[in-house]
Amino acid sequence: MPELRKDPIIGRWVIIATERARRPDEFALPVEGPPEGECPFCEGSEKLTPPEIFAVRLTSAERNLPGWQVRVIPSIKPFLRIEGDLERRGKGIYDLMSSIGAHEVIIETPNHIGNMADLSSEQIAKVVATYIGRIKDLERDERFKYVLVFKNYGWAAGGGRLKHSRSQLIATPANPKRVKEELVGARKYFDYHERCIFCDLIKQELEQKERLILDLDGFVAISPFAARFPFEVWILPKEHSCDFARLKPELYIHLGEMMKIILSKLKKDLSDPPYNYVIHTAPFRRPKLGYWKTIEFDYHWHIEIMPRLTRVAGFEWGTGFYICPIQPERAAQFLRGVEE
Amino acid sequence: MPELRKDPIIGRWVIIATERARRPDEFALPVEGPPEGECPFCEGSEKLTPPEIFAVRLTSAERNLPGWQVRVIPSIKPFLRIEGDLERRGKGIYDLMSSIGAHEVIIETPNHIGNMADLSSEQIAKVVATYIGRIKDLERDERFKYVLVFKNYGWAAGGGRLKHSRSQLIATPANPKRVKEELVGARKYFDYHERCIFCDLIKQELEQKERLILDLDGFVAISPFAARFPFEVWILPKEHSCDFARLKPELYIHLGEMMKIILSKLKKDLSDPPYNYVIHTAPFRRPKLGYWKTIEFDYHWHIEIMPRLTRVAGFEWGTGFYICPIQPERAAQFLRGVEE
Repeated sequence: MPELRKDPIIGRWVIIATERARRPDEFALPVEGPPEGECPFCEGSEKLTPPEIFAVRLTSAERNLPGWQVRVIPSIKPFLRIEGDLERRGKGIYDLMSSIGAHEVIIETPNHIGNMADLSSEQIAKVVATYIGRIKDLERDERFKYVLVFKNYGWAAGGGRLKHSRSQLIATPANPKRVKEELVGARKYFDYHERCIFCDLIKQELEQKERLILDLDGFVAISPFAARFPFEVWILPKEHSCDFARLKPELYIHLGEMMKIILSKLKKDLSDPPYNYVIHTAPFRRPKLGYWKTIEFDYHWHIEIMPRLTRVAGFEWGTGFYICPIQPERAAQFLRGVEE
Repeated sequence: MPELRKDPIIGRWVIIATERARRPDEFALPVEGPPEGECPFCEGSEKLTPPEIFAVRLTSAERNLPGWQVRVIPSIKPFLRIEGDLERRGKGIYDLMSSIGAHEVIIETPNHIGNMADLSSEQIAKVVATYIGRIKDLERDERFKYVLVFKNYGWAAGGGRLKHSRSQLIATPANPKRVKEELVGARKYFDYHERCIFCDLIKQELEQKERLILDLDGFVAISPFAARFPFEVWILPKEHSCDFARLKPELYIHLGEMMKIILSKLKKDLSDPPYNYVIHTAPFRRPKLGYWKTIEFDYHWHIEIMPRLTRVAGFEWGTGFYICPIQPERAAQFLRGVEE
């Protein structure tokens, strides 16, 4: 049974997912996935996956049969298990938790397409709608504090052996450290200024323009001022909202369009690089957790896209001190397509 | 001129090191280094490097000539520059600092040996002595708050194209985020228990033994309870001390021996994996910074060794939530050499 363990010094939770690999020689090198005809994520191969949790279907087709547009299945190698009680216990100075959670795979297209950049904006909008539907459903489970939506594209970005475009979500019984740090930072700024730091950041980027990549239909894409990775991109909604799951349905298509444009720029300009993205949104507001009263005002959901062009070394791991080999202003200029 | 930029939301500093790569196609794939006869780090090739900052020499040989055992040179691609004033300024909501610091390369042997595991314990002890000498020297520069000693071995761990065994150090004008988190965590524990959390951790590991890899001559090596990486190892001094640079000289050889054994186990048992290590020690205690009065008692220096067997994906980057695919107890058992 996997466990959630807490580092006693800095309080970071780690999932000890023992069922993924057992011996040192099982830490795999890249493996070729099955060819198109045998891909379990393609339409027509529904029987090769666990039964679906949810699917977007335009017709009244039955579950686990062809006719879907986006399909959600449980991970076959889950980091966390959905069954069981949330038990938190000590072991001397250590803390651990049973590894309760959900781990789902969102298959983004019925066709054998690898990069989300090659889906249509409309299709990406359906993926966005699916993310939101799943988050709302998982919010009902009182054991969970957070749902993380993320994508690993390409081997160097942690992608698996199957090529078929997909993303993942994980519902966790603890708030991720990185998200907590953002919540704390955003609240500190709000306490002093009584304004959302992300709203101020968007305003400054729209005025200065040097790190702005795209401003389109309610969303902005920027190179963050203190980017960790070359060509890192953040997509933010211009209208203040702490909660991705409350995005107005009429904006799904605009977010789809923004993601399509940005991911296509990365694909084209950087020779189809591996990348990750993560959606940062506010945690579930459970009254008993006494959550930050101001979270509605001080936090702002956004998407962080991280091309994986550089290797991350001991320095970064050991220190939290990143080295980015390109100026964010140059990266933005390059991605805007006005390279000198 | 490189800059240090602060993420406005979570306060992480990033070095924007623009001189490392300029265009997307310059983010390199592995490159073969020069053969043994042309390696600039080998004895006899001193003229191929910048003049040395320091060297361990047993004879009275002149600087920048053969006859050394450990040699320290400035990085030819420094992340930070030693010249200039420390200027901190704002830019709207953003903070930045001139990128002042030191970036040095510690050449660990005059011979063309790639892995520190293949050096003798005595040689590693000389490397330890060199680290300490450099830290003490850099501490005199009032602009610096911290010296980070680290090693990137192998391409996947961020190692460069040269094979020759070396480590690096960076002196920074800001405390690294990760170290700060440890300081805060350790102080919280001390405030409540009036004991050092690392001392308690060592005590528990020595009693429970399941995560203990080696207990030898004043040092312990353990698999940390909440390991982020498979086969991660921490080496800690058993006697309490917050400051690596105050290690008693008679212990250098014992630390050298411990490192030799652990690095050899990793090399042998995990097929010579890429790895990083980082030395975590207390920041320089500048009186004007009003540093934590209890740091002498609550913090405990240590070395974190991280084999790079797994890829780190978007999930980890975006959340600070790590997934480790092997139980630390199994990793310790394996490294102890008593695999069932």
